[in-house]
Amino acid sequence: MFQIPPVPDLNNPDLAAALADKIARKTVPHGALGRLAALAQRLGAILGTTEPRLHAPQLVVFAADHGIVARGVSAYPSDVTWQMVGNFLAGGAAVSVLARQHGIAQTVVDCGVRHDFAPAPGLLIRKVAAGTQDASAGPAMTAAQCDQALANGVALVQGLPGNALLLGEMGIGNTSAATLLTARLGGVDVAEVTGAGTGLDTQGVARKTAVLREALAANAEATAPLAALAALGGLEIATMVGAILQAASERRVIVVDGFIASAAVLVASRLAPPVLQRCVFAHQSDERGHARLLAMLGAGAPAQQGIGPLLDMGLRVGEGSGAALAWPLLVSACAILNEMASFESAGVSDRA
Amino acid sequence: MFQIPPVPDLNNPDLAAALADKIARKTVPHGALGRLAALAQRLGAILGTTEPRLHAPQLVVFAADHGIVARGVSAYPSDVTWQMVGNFLAGGAAVSVLARQHGIAQTVVDCGVRHDFAPAPGLLIRKVAAGTQDASAGPAMTAAQCDQALANGVALVQGLPGNALLLGEMGIGNTSAATLLTARLGGVDVAEVTGAGTGLDTQGVARKTAVLREALAANAEATAPLAALAALGGLEIATMVGAILQAASERRVIVVDGFIASAAVLVASRLAPPVLQRCVFAHQSDERGHARLLAMLGAGAPAQQGIGPLLDMGLRVGEGSGAALAWPLLVSACAILNEMASFESAGVSDRA
Repeated sequence: MFQIPPVPDLNNPDLAAALADKIARKTVPHGALGRLAALAQRLGAILGTTEPRLHAPQLVVFAADHGIVARGVSAYPSDVTWQMVGNFLAGGAAVSVLARQHGIAQTVVDCGVRHDFAPAPGLLIRKVAAGTQDASAGPAMTAAQCDQALANGVALVQGLPGNALLLGEMGIGNTSAATLLTARLGGVDVAEVTGAGTGLDTQGVARKTAVLREALAANAEATAPLAALAALGGLEIATMVGAILQAASERRVIVVDGFIASAAVLVASRLAPPVLQRCVFAHQSDERGHARLLAMLGAGAPAQQGIGPLLDMGLRVGEGSGAALAWPLLVSACAILNEMASFESAGVSDRA
Repeated sequence: MFQIPPVPDLNNPDLAAALADKIARKTVPHGALGRLAALAQRLGAILGTTEPRLHAPQLVVFAADHGIVARGVSAYPSDVTWQMVGNFLAGGAAVSVLARQHGIAQTVVDCGVRHDFAPAPGLLIRKVAAGTQDASAGPAMTAAQCDQALANGVALVQGLPGNALLLGEMGIGNTSAATLLTARLGGVDVAEVTGAGTGLDTQGVARKTAVLREALAANAEATAPLAALAALGGLEIATMVGAILQAASERRVIVVDGFIASAAVLVASRLAPPVLQRCVFAHQSDERGHARLLAMLGAGAPAQQGIGPLLDMGLRVGEGSGAALAWPLLVSACAILNEMASFESAGVSDRA
């Protein structure tokens, strides 16, 4: 039975006030830093200091295959999953390029890819099974498989340096799994959150929606978070959920990528709500259900709630590419806190 | 009389097609790179290559004072302009911190600050006058002063290394000048584009709007771009217009910051429309008129037009801080073009 790592509430009014005061003294008009100030406050709250410093950021690409792909829910074949693992390891994928640009370490984890990989630097084999079963015909995973994946995620993060985890993933079919989890745990009709994934046309999305309805019906009893994860999720998502919980337990900054990573955060936050206090949502992707999912997580569009997703570039790459793309904004928020002058220190007149 | 540098049309269907083809072969689902792909295409078009590389980026902070501040249009006193110049030179301002983070060179130009600066590294004295006259009582500048500022901007860029210019500014009162230019050249009522600047309250914005109406009435004849610039603009804005025109003439990438920089682009693009082909709009600021001004420049919200502003962080700092904050996204777009694998090179299956 999976033991959820403890994730204490971070609420600390004194620290929040100290951060707000420090920001208010910076040499800009009051409030002018906008969401960059909110981001700085969040990073200070997570790291427990008015001088937050990010170091040794770790981007982990969780990879696995999905039995439901046999039902024609993706525009690409399952083989693309293992082929893309090779692309990550060779440094040619979008996320690899962006991680390299920003000095972010990339690790790829085989959580359940239908392929036997030779050992390679930067690749961890944590394969629970060669892909999931077809969720439209019954549970995608057994409870034991799901527990194993969760435990793998916990153990993996325990060994990582640094104080920030960027969530990445690869798995043909995993928008289907993420959609199922969003519909089940979010209580919305699956049609409202089913999108094009890697590029289905309108008819393809309609077919995918019908298959996902079958999956929900075939797993009607799986309503609790862990049961839903096992029945409807994927091995990369379950491993990621374990990693998120452990990262939250260790007070790491969790940089959430797109729809799949957000679905993993949804599951993790149902198991331990203070997980959300450690999250920074890197971007809103173009995948149809993501805006709705972000709203469920209290991270809707900027005008509505808190920090909101940092970027909105119309991306639907996955891989952690949005997290890597947004990373320098987190570094900027820390630099603003740590390096900017105050009105007093710079000898600049504040308003009357 | 100011000579407008030649700014040829960049339209090149062959290059655009080559860039689109190169992007389509990258190992992501087709179209999945969203606005990052559009940004890559724009950078390729500006630099005239399918392998655009940015080097030695230059952020220039154009600083000056405004006579109209005597009418109470700003929440801060004019002295803040020269005090902030000191803050830039000491590296303590928001833009200085962000430029340092990204290895962007910062140059401050005294275009017309009411203060005599001692020589300092990183400071250029190109002072045309100790601030403008009060535009609510007549022209802010003489035509000769405006021409001198424009020529200073041209000469300044001729001496800069690198292939990218990031636009920054400092000048208490300069949202007033930018608002006047937007209203006059954009043909909108001034009340629609008058905002809080450094932080006016509702009554303050109402007073500012009334003063700006006086300025428009006092300069009713100034309808052509250069006449409007002289009558309603500022010395930092006029110098920036010259710099933009020269940067465009040299095919530099022009990274536009917020409301004031966008107003300078508006003037420059009325003098030489292909200027807009060289612009990347870094962000949409929280200053009231900026969204409208971006739309005038063909760079409205992402869903509407082209690339749109890259960030929307609720900033109203100015200084070039938004340009510096967005800079790594431009570097990412180039890296995606230059470093990402293709389906063929990575041995990844494309969709059928």
